[in-house]
Amino acid sequence: MHHVSEFRVRYSETDQMGVVYHANYLVWCEIGRTDLMRATGNSYAKLEQGGIALAVVDASLRFKRPARYDNRIRVTTRVKEVRTRAVRFEYQIDDLDQGVALAEGSTTLVAMNSESKGCAIPAAFRSALESYVSE
Amino acid sequence: MHHVSEFRVRYSETDQMGVVYHANYLVWCEIGRTDLMRATGNSYAKLEQGGIALAVVDASLRFKRPARYDNRIRVTTRVKEVRTRAVRFEYQIDDLDQGVALAEGSTTLVAMNSESKGCAIPAAFRSALESYVSE
Amino acid sequence: MHHVSEFRVRYSETDQMGVVYHANYLVWCEIGRTDLMRATGNSYAKLEQGGIALAVVDASLRFKRPARYDNRIRVTTRVKEVRTRAVRFEYQIDDLDQGVALAEGSTTLVAMNSESKGCAIPAAFRSALESYVSE
Amino acid sequence: MHHVSEFRVRYSETDQMGVVYHANYLVWCEIGRTDLMRATGNSYAKLEQGGIALAVVDASLRFKRPARYDNRIRVTTRVKEVRTRAVRFEYQIDDLDQGVALAEGSTTLVAMNSESKGCAIPAAFRSALESYVSE
Repeated sequence: MHHVSEFRVRYSETDQMGVVYHANYLVWCEIGRTDLMRATGNSYAKLEQGGIALAVVDASLRFKRPARYDNRIRVTTRVKEVRTRAVRFEYQIDDLDQGVALAEGSTTLVAMNSESKGCAIPAAFRSALESYVSE
Repeated sequence: MHHVSEFRVRYSETDQMGVVYHANYLVWCEIGRTDLMRATGNSYAKLEQGGIALAVVDASLRFKRPARYDNRIRVTTRVKEVRTRAVRFEYQIDDLDQGVALAEGSTTLVAMNSESKGCAIPAAFRSALESYVSE
Repeated sequence: MHHVSEFRVRYSETDQMGVVYHANYLVWCEIGRTDLMRATGNSYAKLEQGGIALAVVDASLRFKRPARYDNRIRVTTRVKEVRTRAVRFEYQIDDLDQGVALAEGSTTLVAMNSESKGCAIPAAFRSALESYVSE
Repeated sequence: MHHVSEFRVRYSETDQMGVVYHANYLVWCEIGRTDLMRATGNSYAKLEQGGIALAVVDASLRFKRPARYDNRIRVTTRVKEVRTRAVRFEYQIDDLDQGVALAEGSTTLVAMNSESKGCAIPAAFRSALESYVSE
């Protein structure tokens, strides 16, 4: 199971190479996983209001082709693995106007309480994520 | 009296027009006023740790020439007016490598306590800013 | 006549004050005017591909209330004035989830050719913008 | 051999978790490798003016501790491998005020000519980078 997010490239996301600046792909991955969480009915905003944050502990990206200004981007987000305190997401990023794959990425996030100590992901949130785990 | 900050244009700050994206000038203004505050011995970081934030309530920028990647930028920051709850800064932004004026700007900031209510700027902080007020 | 753009606040747009960092409102204004142009059938992307850029020469913002993460934002964009070489836009920014006005702003943009010299806005583009001018 | 870059955390780089937003570490890595290139006398700005760009094709980051606003950051950049068309950099990012390691990362960049086709890194530039290769 996966979640799909779509949006257009913003001018502010380009750089003088004439394409999207590479760090912005991490922002797009964040949109992907945030939209997935919201779709489960357990938004990240509510999780954080409840005192639990998910902090990124690793991130990797492979860039295949450059994204162009104003094009429509699709981020396909999958939950790769859910553990008691961590969750791993994978992302595929496509340019719908060029009809090409742009990049692939993954991030691991760990739960932290309001004192910035590692903690368990709340059970309801975790089981909602588990229902998305891809084979 | 004024304060001078210098730094290089980052690649991430450019856009596909081949120059610095305009919103980044507000980031540079923030560097200017933050450096000025730190120079008074009353850093903004400490102010915020003490429960008082300065929130921007207005901002204006006039752009004269475009800033180029890798060039050295100089932000000259002046305190225009200090009131009990508000302070107004003015900025001049120059490109040292091109030797030209890039932009002018101003921002007004108001003090807020930890419940996001308006409050007085702490007296020591205010008098430090007052010593910078330009005629 | 005006154009309405809607999107959610991204986590990357917040700062440690717990609200949206002020410079991002200029990015949102850009989304507003870009969406308006695209709605006229004369996208900014095509204008730039034809060798004409619109550069921001002034910008001003007044902030009323802070924008919150994950909330839905509405940018209402109006064309205030169209001249041979320049166009002025006005923006109203609202938070649909809080039901409050967040900010107002304006920007002036001038047309530039591929040698970065001022030039006329192409006639078709200009008349499309003129049809949006608000009284 | 390595190169060291130092700068302070900008307020704009924080997010509402109260720490630096993770995507900004890629910006910091870019500062590190750009400073390294400039130190060799072959700046990236000049390379690009000569029609050759270096595009990021992969990036990875491991985050250990969060970076705090206003703290002084040190990026230590190493050249891991130089090939005809590609170069791999590694980064260590420390917080000088906290005295702790924040993150490690790596990026691979490939040379592209002005038609966005892969090409060789110019020989002088390549040999300058080779003198930095770490064992």
